[in-house]
Amino acid sequence: MKFFQVKSVEETFDLISRHIKPLTEYITIPLTEALHFVLAEDIYAPENVPDFRRSTVDGYAVKAKDTFGSSESMPGFLTLAGEVQMGEVPPRAIQAGEAMYVPTGGMLPDGSDAVVMIEHCEDLAGLINVFKQVAPGENVISVGEDIGKGALLLEKGTKLRSQELGALASQGITAVSVIRKPVIGYLSSGDEIVPIETESLAPGEIRDMNGMTIGALVAEWGYSFQYGGIVKDNREEFERRAKELLARTDCLIVSGGSSVGTKDYSVEVIQSLGNPGVFVHGVSIKPGKPTILSLAENKPVIGLPGHPASAVIIFHLFGKAILELLHGARKQERQLTFAKITKNIPSSPGRTDYVRVRLFEENDDWYAEPIIGKSGLISTLVQSDGMIEIADRLEGVQKGERVPVRIFR
Amino acid sequence: MKFFQVKSVEETFDLISRHIKPLTEYITIPLTEALHFVLAEDIYAPENVPDFRRSTVDGYAVKAKDTFGSSESMPGFLTLAGEVQMGEVPPRAIQAGEAMYVPTGGMLPDGSDAVVMIEHCEDLAGLINVFKQVAPGENVISVGEDIGKGALLLEKGTKLRSQELGALASQGITAVSVIRKPVIGYLSSGDEIVPIETESLAPGEIRDMNGMTIGALVAEWGYSFQYGGIVKDNREEFERRAKELLARTDCLIVSGGSSVGTKDYSVEVIQSLGNPGVFVHGVSIKPGKPTILSLAENKPVIGLPGHPASAVIIFHLFGKAILELLHGARKQERQLTFAKITKNIPSSPGRTDYVRVRLFEENDDWYAEPIIGKSGLISTLVQSDGMIEIADRLEGVQKGERVPVRIFR
Repeated sequence: MKFFQVKSVEETFDLISRHIKPLTEYITIPLTEALHFVLAEDIYAPENVPDFRRSTVDGYAVKAKDTFGSSESMPGFLTLAGEVQMGEVPPRAIQAGEAMYVPTGGMLPDGSDAVVMIEHCEDLAGLINVFKQVAPGENVISVGEDIGKGALLLEKGTKLRSQELGALASQGITAVSVIRKPVIGYLSSGDEIVPIETESLAPGEIRDMNGMTIGALVAEWGYSFQYGGIVKDNREEFERRAKELLARTDCLIVSGGSSVGTKDYSVEVIQSLGNPGVFVHGVSIKPGKPTILSLAENKPVIGLPGHPASAVIIFHLFGKAILELLHGARKQERQLTFAKITKNIPSSPGRTDYVRVRLFEENDDWYAEPIIGKSGLISTLVQSDGMIEIADRLEGVQKGERVPVRIFR
Repeated sequence: MKFFQVKSVEETFDLISRHIKPLTEYITIPLTEALHFVLAEDIYAPENVPDFRRSTVDGYAVKAKDTFGSSESMPGFLTLAGEVQMGEVPPRAIQAGEAMYVPTGGMLPDGSDAVVMIEHCEDLAGLINVFKQVAPGENVISVGEDIGKGALLLEKGTKLRSQELGALASQGITAVSVIRKPVIGYLSSGDEIVPIETESLAPGEIRDMNGMTIGALVAEWGYSFQYGGIVKDNREEFERRAKELLARTDCLIVSGGSSVGTKDYSVEVIQSLGNPGVFVHGVSIKPGKPTILSLAENKPVIGLPGHPASAVIIFHLFGKAILELLHGARKQERQLTFAKITKNIPSSPGRTDYVRVRLFEENDDWYAEPIIGKSGLISTLVQSDGMIEIADRLEGVQKGERVPVRIFR
């Protein structure tokens, strides 16, 4: 077993990114089911976008050289050669000295190479007065200008948002190869933890609210969740149940029992699940110091602190990063903003502090009001919109300072 | 039919909040399925939190008055009366002159009313030296201090996040009455629109990428989506298909055909679906001016502009607000941040402009780089992380100014 050596937040993130590898099972699914999956392949554009020359304005398609020298004081004259209908092929090509009406997005007729905006023309019964010259290509999108056929459209590792799905659909791509979504197992440990269905509590008992909170976060982030129930403080049973659950999931989360105490089997059980084993045991963070991170035969195992507020903060920070890496996303999702803090908050250098905050908007800026309650069990959770980070080099933050905020959705 | 009168963005939001009422069908579901549902009832706490007096520190439970006058130079002396185990009832009450060890979160023994931190004590073989006095209640959470039994825990209209689910679970609440989630129908209109499966396009044809993008956003926001297919520019068929789809959904989205043109039946069809009918036809916004908003017998109908980039922006702005109101959420979800713009962007006063941006972080602040492409069809969509708003009173924004950003997830 590794020696208990507390890591900084930065070291922890670094160790996470070095240890966690994406799943390598790929599945092909219809685009309509692919939201928030991660691409398992590079996708190249099968078509030019646009696939015909298109006007960016309402105006007249012309040969640019026919307009050279035209101005307000010295208009040019062109003959109207008809009209392009939206979504249709132009009726014919234009000749020198001709102009054809074309709407925004409409196809340019052969023979034309630019469009004069309608505001710079006047139609005098079929004779078009042109008050402004245009250069070749002006007000025109050429074939493949947005995306060229064969160009890289989306890179392997891209998490598919609505925009990417739209882009794929526009190219006629209706199925994609993606990385299977990870299945996350969860086990609560502790003699005092009882099922949430328990009607009345004996003294000292608490219901397994962490199972609910962590399960909801896993679902919100788009992964499958398997609730493995509660295990009492018994090393053998704990190890057996953890092995069983890990065998049928991609990642195991264990809540509770991770402080250094007499009944603490968590780190031993986690270490026993496989190699290389525990790579973080303790983080210089408040709250959440007794965090355990491990890798058992390529499957991440996360030991969360038992306190509900700490568990949520640690899972937002490290759990999310681990699940995203496991799912192969190339870049981490942004849930970060910045806000001005409304109170001074002291902090100890050498430790990163996270403080839950309520966010509000005022004068085009965000403000973060710390939610400080000595209990921190329920009411403060419900009031919080996110958490601010006080970096480990700081002795605190001053009222009015801009601080990074991680938003809880 | 209402007269075509362009509304400002503010007027549009105001009209939306006055017209759209939440669904009134309630269902009772298990907590494990309730993520992102909206509560249909106020929920009162059935239990005190905490339900016993609890220590907030590792230390000694004492009678506060026994410590009065104790200091570094003049310590008090108390007799050790045993130890409280975590999650267990204390072995006995304490008497005057006694102290009992209690861990953080542990139950206070009867007879005690405060806890002295372990750092302020010294255990000399069962004699506890106390170097600091404590006031009654110090380092103690009293019964019901976090949440009192019978107090309002969560208000009707609360959208259930992971935190709220955890809070409910902690109280032994395992099922909740919620507002049914709305089902959203979608119909694309336009002779040029073809199914996304179409292998090769005839000149002028485009695949129905809006159906994919809008469907993915609806799913991302947690609602059901029914794709109603494509309807050609034929007023009768359009009206029949729209009526049919609206009859089996809670809200209808119609894409395309909403600019004022010869083939534009959208506003007539939307008006024909029911009363009170169209309440917004045209918004002073760029892009997205030809937006239509209507209410047909309490069901919202949204006419989106056909251009993909405009459709996405309008749906993020007004569509999301409409769906959230329909789903009864008390407060709108935050997807807003602020960022410094990296370029000057001119804009016309009297019109609200939305510009898609790429977001990046530097020196503890967000920067928004405008993505400006004349085509705006595919590549700019994929590059964008959100959109900035240039308010209608402004003539543009200057490089370095802080601007509001709506984040695309």
